[in-house]
Amino acid sequence: MCAAGGVTPGPPLPDAGAVADLGEFGLIARITAGRELSPGTLLGPGDDAAVLAAADGRVVVTTDVLVEGVHFRLDWSTPQQVGRKAVAANLADVAAMGAVPTALVVGLAVPGRTPISTVDGLAAGMWAQAAQAGADIVGGDVVSSAQLVVSVTALGDLRGRAPVTRSGARPGNVLGLCGRLGWSAAGLALLRQGFRSPLAVIAAHCAPEPPYGAGPQAASAGATAMIDISDGLVADAGHVAEASGVGIDIDSAALPVASQLVEVASALGADARHWVLTGGEDHALLASFPAGVALPVGWTQVGVVREGRGVTVDGGEVLPGGWEHFS
Amino acid sequence: MCAAGGVTPGPPLPDAGAVADLGEFGLIARITAGRELSPGTLLGPGDDAAVLAAADGRVVVTTDVLVEGVHFRLDWSTPQQVGRKAVAANLADVAAMGAVPTALVVGLAVPGRTPISTVDGLAAGMWAQAAQAGADIVGGDVVSSAQLVVSVTALGDLRGRAPVTRSGARPGNVLGLCGRLGWSAAGLALLRQGFRSPLAVIAAHCAPEPPYGAGPQAASAGATAMIDISDGLVADAGHVAEASGVGIDIDSAALPVASQLVEVASALGADARHWVLTGGEDHALLASFPAGVALPVGWTQVGVVREGRGVTVDGGEVLPGGWEHFS
Repeated sequence: MCAAGGVTPGPPLPDAGAVADLGEFGLIARITAGRELSPGTLLGPGDDAAVLAAADGRVVVTTDVLVEGVHFRLDWSTPQQVGRKAVAANLADVAAMGAVPTALVVGLAVPGRTPISTVDGLAAGMWAQAAQAGADIVGGDVVSSAQLVVSVTALGDLRGRAPVTRSGARPGNVLGLCGRLGWSAAGLALLRQGFRSPLAVIAAHCAPEPPYGAGPQAASAGATAMIDISDGLVADAGHVAEASGVGIDIDSAALPVASQLVEVASALGADARHWVLTGGEDHALLASFPAGVALPVGWTQVGVVREGRGVTVDGGEVLPGGWEHFS
Repeated sequence: MCAAGGVTPGPPLPDAGAVADLGEFGLIARITAGRELSPGTLLGPGDDAAVLAAADGRVVVTTDVLVEGVHFRLDWSTPQQVGRKAVAANLADVAAMGAVPTALVVGLAVPGRTPISTVDGLAAGMWAQAAQAGADIVGGDVVSSAQLVVSVTALGDLRGRAPVTRSGARPGNVLGLCGRLGWSAAGLALLRQGFRSPLAVIAAHCAPEPPYGAGPQAASAGATAMIDISDGLVADAGHVAEASGVGIDIDSAALPVASQLVEVASALGADARHWVLTGGEDHALLASFPAGVALPVGWTQVGVVREGRGVTVDGGEVLPGGWEHFS
């Protein structure tokens, strides 16, 4: 990305044909050529490895893999949305440590018959989402496969702050939330029943928009623990509770339930509150803060950390959890 | 890895059943639990992201993806060998920048029917190869897929040295090689014809052993350009020639052709010299050095950098190149 945060489009290339016609190196050139990189990218794509500045003396790293037919469907999502989603899932993990995303490397396993326009769309979506968080795509690998697999690794900079882990929540802390919940689950429910609207709800599933800046913001405000909500609020609160050795109680009345979700739930005969409590992949951020700390702008108190174990909602029973692969 | 470089085995767990029985979190715990990490890993697996020391103020990053049926076959390679190969391909790229590998993150896309023992084997191979280079596995993602895909990202530390890119070769430089060539191609030729021996040649294909230490060594000795030979000597020399705007002449008489390869070639009616010149995936290192520099121990002069373009062998014609996906 250039210093101004804009995205320079790749060179104009013919978009007819399949990736097998372009070859590995042609494909890599197509994804990486003509992009402006930030000053922190000391050596960008094209060599055996990239070199990034890590002025903090530490680097944050995380990886997520998206598989066609499991995490996305190309009849439901545009390639741009898939690219956005793959990058968003990773950058949200970086933000959840309290870090600022700096760079990404991307592995693409692509069937040879895949249209070149699909790969162009994936790349465009990845660059656009990366730009939104101020990160560069600094390298990658493109290989042939039977199934489309998008593997992204993201790096981040703590800028002198301590990382905010899952294990620091303490009884008496308040639980804060920043970002949307239930939207991705509602979009998925619509798609599963053959609907293609409301567009905003569908798009929330196909290309989530995590609040990247809220992670470093929470860290600066003294967050004691933080997690990216990828598996669902109850499940990910459970991960914090387990790692911290505490209990968490969620105040369901404090959870924002958007009117769009209520309308969709009503149309589908579903429960919007269930989506908000258990739906994954919105990549909101959940964090605990010392009592009495003013939550940063954009954060809402949605519960408390208590003695004990597990997650309760309104002091009562735990709802069934979120998303786990192979389960 | 512990400071002594040893590998602490994971906890004893039942190895019956398929990964679908274990679930995503059970699988991740199985891969990462009980491993000792180096002091440079400030926060290891189990959180949204890992945190690594980057005392140099820069970090080297690269990624490679291996796909079952494309890069490996589980009827030819053990899962341990596949794990070793996936890690080796990445760590060799780090070494080719002149950097010391520090950490890896791993993405596994695994069919639910995969035996747990296969994932255990993959993990054991990855940890063993990482340990050999002094690197930790600090995070990962495990998802379900139709085809086994192993995606690895490696990080490295330049320890104050400038990165050695592909673009610094200058006419008059000498061309140095460290590591084996042709072995992987010979092993692949054997496997394709149904042979399972000689074991050393088969193993060279299934689990290459790059000379990791030779990368930083070459950087310290003043290497002007360097590349990991993953596509074959001629093809990768071509990448250096193109990036540097020079020509490269390879002296075939200087290339080591092991007697085992001559024997295998003779048995298969193949040409060992062709394997050495064009066979990929051995992950030897190729570097250019200023004339008059004493090459580091283990490095052999195998050619010269000249004015012009492209790669010649013994001043004559260029052989067909190496491996490219989708070609």
